[in-house]
Amino acid sequence: MNRRPRTAVTLADVAEVAGVSKAAVSGVLNGKPRVAPSTAQRILDAARTLGYHANPTAQQLRSGRTNAIGFVIPELNRPYFGELATHLANQLDAQGQHLVIQRSGGSKEHELAAAQFAQLRRYDAVILSVLGVDPPDLESLGFSIPLILLGEKSMPGAHPQVIMDNEAGAHNAVTHLLTHGATRIVMLGGSHSPDRNDMTRRRTDGYRSAHCDTNHPLNEELIVELTGVGPEAGYHAITTLIDAGTPFDAVFAVTDVVAIGAMRALADAGFTIPGDVQVIGFDDITDGCYTIPRLSSVNPHKERIAQAVLDLIAEPETAPQAVTIPTTLTLRESTQR
Amino acid sequence: MNRRPRTAVTLADVAEVAGVSKAAVSGVLNGKPRVAPSTAQRILDAARTLGYHANPTAQQLRSGRTNAIGFVIPELNRPYFGELATHLANQLDAQGQHLVIQRSGGSKEHELAAAQFAQLRRYDAVILSVLGVDPPDLESLGFSIPLILLGEKSMPGAHPQVIMDNEAGAHNAVTHLLTHGATRIVMLGGSHSPDRNDMTRRRTDGYRSAHCDTNHPLNEELIVELTGVGPEAGYHAITTLIDAGTPFDAVFAVTDVVAIGAMRALADAGFTIPGDVQVIGFDDITDGCYTIPRLSSVNPHKERIAQAVLDLIAEPETAPQAVTIPTTLTLRESTQR
Repeated sequence: MNRRPRTAVTLADVAEVAGVSKAAVSGVLNGKPRVAPSTAQRILDAARTLGYHANPTAQQLRSGRTNAIGFVIPELNRPYFGELATHLANQLDAQGQHLVIQRSGGSKEHELAAAQFAQLRRYDAVILSVLGVDPPDLESLGFSIPLILLGEKSMPGAHPQVIMDNEAGAHNAVTHLLTHGATRIVMLGGSHSPDRNDMTRRRTDGYRSAHCDTNHPLNEELIVELTGVGPEAGYHAITTLIDAGTPFDAVFAVTDVVAIGAMRALADAGFTIPGDVQVIGFDDITDGCYTIPRLSSVNPHKERIAQAVLDLIAEPETAPQAVTIPTTLTLRESTQR
Repeated sequence: MNRRPRTAVTLADVAEVAGVSKAAVSGVLNGKPRVAPSTAQRILDAARTLGYHANPTAQQLRSGRTNAIGFVIPELNRPYFGELATHLANQLDAQGQHLVIQRSGGSKEHELAAAQFAQLRRYDAVILSVLGVDPPDLESLGFSIPLILLGEKSMPGAHPQVIMDNEAGAHNAVTHLLTHGATRIVMLGGSHSPDRNDMTRRRTDGYRSAHCDTNHPLNEELIVELTGVGPEAGYHAITTLIDAGTPFDAVFAVTDVVAIGAMRALADAGFTIPGDVQVIGFDDITDGCYTIPRLSSVNPHKERIAQAVLDLIAEPETAPQAVTIPTTLTLRESTQR
């Protein structure tokens, strides 16, 4: 393994070859030439010939910025976060900044450890997708760099937050099902706890209000809690419902990934989609365009979420406490038109 | 936004409350008490009462380690890398280390920029998935921290590398198809360039050698190059082949994601899988267990790749130049048994 530091070409080397002062070289290479154009050209030629590269550590120390934005997400293998991170990275790349991703694991303890580590890494700002952590926990960290909270759980406090409209998104999806033939809709990955403050609770609130607003009876037995968030959790829960003989004619899944597991379970049990059972997910991931059948979903507009986060980072002084991004419904083949 | 630094509780505060020296507090809190047990207990009580937290920056400076391993991947929204990163993060978490992910974009220029930035961030080691970069480019960076190269492209040089057995994996997949009824197999995402040194070339070599070894004729027109690596690329290429009237009875896709796009295109054109056309992918991503039909794939054993990378980081002095991880074949519903 190559551990030896190489002898780097310095500003002084360029100055010597060009026959000018180090200050003149620095001025030209930083785009602020205070010399004649012919001298500037001589300096640029010398720098190129010698293979001079500016020292990024020194540049970072001078600017007081790291050009790194930290993004702490619950898991590394969830398409929603992969697509959101891609939107963020695309926009940051264009500004010459780097997105750096860490995993929190989703528990309070791990989120705090990840946030503390992010602070230690001295990012210019940290974007934290909160699941387990509460406002007092965050205050205990004494964040000294801008911290933007993301999604799901309402976190009133000292830090701005970008939230997707979970309840309205769920309400629209379930209303579509109830007005297109469905009467017994499984809420796959819902919550029975009224005091929870999280994404499953908010999406279940939308499921409930859609029934209320359209005068449909609500069956608590159809609200199914999940222990995981992957396709295997959706697969297992639907298989269990079918085995128990519980009748249903639609599935509203808390995420697209869970919906994909549910569709596979329905196919294995011989149900047609959307003929026997309609299915709709949440997140509008790219994969949903390629499933058989194509998956209908609530679109949280990841590109708008990314833009709102970056706007909050760019304008920390005028930042509002919370920005809510509206959702829309993407209807494909897994639901009735 | 909360930018005010908070007044932190210091070691001196704990020492004052406990009535001992700072050295005594430091010894107890670092697990090396040189005081009586009752004194140690008094120190721990004082630290807890005051809410003392060790300063991680100071700890990092003392140890000379950042406890961060950088992982530079081509894209953030590819399930293969999300799953591999999860394996790495699981193993690093258990050692109290953090995996930090950056995107390179896959081009030479962006890989070099990402690697340079990783060096600037002073990770304890960097894992770089190389697509565009060549050995001389890497040498120009003068890496002073351990650098482990990953996958795909052979990179003889100063840095150890973990490679998946691309050619044997492709050979086994295509041999399975040729010995289970297929005669005209599309290599979706192959390469016609004999001088390329990358994953598409290696998997195409396996496709070719499988035909040769089983005495089957090879049709160059069935080796289809792709412009992208997402499902849309697979979808578009298969649709184009069908529209052109090119006959085929199997698809070997360069990745599972491409295979998923291909399966959707086949379904849209009315072909059954595996009755009319068998499909097999590469990567064995979790999603392949939930597609309709379930996707057969080459399993690169991501957990073994992760372990090999971490072994190379742990033992830099004895590191071999390249470790090749063997693949196996995972047969599901999209191929004939």
